[in-house]
Amino acid sequence: MQLAITEARKGIGLTSPNPPVGAVIIKGKELLGKGWHTQAGKPHAEREAIADALGRHEKDILQGATIYITLEPCSSHGRTPPCTQAILDAGISHVIYGAKDPNPEHAGCAEVDLKAAGVSVTTGVCEQGCQQLIRPFTKVQQTGLPWVILKSALSLDGRITRAPSESRWLTSPASRELVQQLRFECDAIITGGKTARIDDPSLTLRSANLPKKKQPWRMVVTRGTKSQLPANLHLFSDDHADRTLVQEGGDLHAALRTLVEKGCNSVLVEAGGTLMGAMLEAGLADEVAIFYAPMLTGGPNTGFAGSQIEWELRDQHFSCIGDDILLRASIKHPV
Amino acid sequence: MQLAITEARKGIGLTSPNPPVGAVIIKGKELLGKGWHTQAGKPHAEREAIADALGRHEKDILQGATIYITLEPCSSHGRTPPCTQAILDAGISHVIYGAKDPNPEHAGCAEVDLKAAGVSVTTGVCEQGCQQLIRPFTKVQQTGLPWVILKSALSLDGRITRAPSESRWLTSPASRELVQQLRFECDAIITGGKTARIDDPSLTLRSANLPKKKQPWRMVVTRGTKSQLPANLHLFSDDHADRTLVQEGGDLHAALRTLVEKGCNSVLVEAGGTLMGAMLEAGLADEVAIFYAPMLTGGPNTGFAGSQIEWELRDQHFSCIGDDILLRASIKHPV
Repeated sequence: MQLAITEARKGIGLTSPNPPVGAVIIKGKELLGKGWHTQAGKPHAEREAIADALGRHEKDILQGATIYITLEPCSSHGRTPPCTQAILDAGISHVIYGAKDPNPEHAGCAEVDLKAAGVSVTTGVCEQGCQQLIRPFTKVQQTGLPWVILKSALSLDGRITRAPSESRWLTSPASRELVQQLRFECDAIITGGKTARIDDPSLTLRSANLPKKKQPWRMVVTRGTKSQLPANLHLFSDDHADRTLVQEGGDLHAALRTLVEKGCNSVLVEAGGTLMGAMLEAGLADEVAIFYAPMLTGGPNTGFAGSQIEWELRDQHFSCIGDDILLRASIKHPV
Repeated sequence: MQLAITEARKGIGLTSPNPPVGAVIIKGKELLGKGWHTQAGKPHAEREAIADALGRHEKDILQGATIYITLEPCSSHGRTPPCTQAILDAGISHVIYGAKDPNPEHAGCAEVDLKAAGVSVTTGVCEQGCQQLIRPFTKVQQTGLPWVILKSALSLDGRITRAPSESRWLTSPASRELVQQLRFECDAIITGGKTARIDDPSLTLRSANLPKKKQPWRMVVTRGTKSQLPANLHLFSDDHADRTLVQEGGDLHAALRTLVEKGCNSVLVEAGGTLMGAMLEAGLADEVAIFYAPMLTGGPNTGFAGSQIEWELRDQHFSCIGDDILLRASIKHPV
């Protein structure tokens, strides 16, 4: 299943509105085939793995084989025919999957269908890892809102600005490269009107180290109107201007729902303290990715502004990125 | 030398105004004796190690032996006779030390005296580790001001307060136990008038896991006068009330000089954001010990208030303490 998870990861950032999924087929100790879902509308991971196996082996090799899939196979007709049928057609005799379909209408249906056809089914293997892969998809399915990651770069006393005499950047080139990775993994990037005006960010994918991908949606959330923002900002005038949206009136829920309508499962927020604080206060944030630069900077500009709140973080993971520390953690929502 | 450093560490927090020092005597592959400086006025580490060796071996065992000392031995008469003489008297033939005496009047004198008497001398072994042991002593010798450690407990967005409905403490019991260790290692604890008034801290050593030690000096730095602080605060009314000082008028330099006069080399600041920021802005802080609790809390109370500054941190060391992360780092002073 770890191998299937590794396959699935290749699709992170590419598959929305579908989730990333990976599949591996074995028989005895032999790995027959593997595959991952590359893009909505393209074959699902199970079909990719079956095709991979059949491309390299005799036609009947899959008789009696076992398939590991990170997510319950689909059992209904979507853009592609149901994968349960493909599994039956291939003659696979044992299906092992990690996460159940988060859509309550489909959850468990594959298990019933496959068992009825005489296929052995095991569920919940490496469930946590498999569920983590599809958190954004699950959130959209269950709430109609996307998975929101707050990305910030802070000094170790929680500020986002340096003294005017210093470099614009708090964090190191290595951290900024990792921000590219984060952008790649998300379907949209939100920033605030103030940040758009002051920093004029482009929010593009610029790294030569990442696969090619369509520019993620860019969304400016402003308390005012679009006409109050300078038309010559990069966001409105560069080659990806058609990928920029504006949410007027500062309505965060409306902004997020618009992005879900565009097919986004995951959204990265790269903004100043006010918008970050508003996302937290509204209970809309799911995860943080905070880069801490090795300095204390003081001053009025905190990375998370707003009133006294309290969000507990869990699954904290700290790593060294150049001279900086990156914290990734989930935000624990009140039950 | 690592063994000598381990010996020296036993004295951290106990030796001021002297530095912690450790010594180890070997001959061939045999460890003959070891010792550490336990308290000002008591024998220096070299004498402790010599006494240890002589207590366990024949009288002439030290002839031709080698002594490792973390700090250059003293060569002048202080509260105790010079250790260089004790080394010569013992017949030790090779002296290896790590850090030079930071007092420019004494630095290198031991090397000259010992070589003149026919003893072989090696200097600068494990120099960084040996110098780190005596940073507080060195700072007092060179500037007349103590080594200042800013200790704070923050949320991951840099705040020091939680929502009123929550526990008083941001950090875990494990972190608070480590604060006891920090207090133990310092000679004085500074807090601000506002913290004294609002939190009424006792700033005592309460851990059962630490050796007994005299209560460190407690210093309240207030912008007002002592008479404006409630007389029934723990600091003024508990069993250690005679160990509480007040610096009126908010004069940080005067507060620190007073503590040096009392024999303090190292000072822990446990205070709110205003005093922390003032210490930073005045360039008086040398080190930070920041506990980060796994939460975002927002609100107005930052751990380091004050104007936009920029202090680079170096030798950053992060460790997991219960659910918290402890950052220890030195503050890089402009050259």
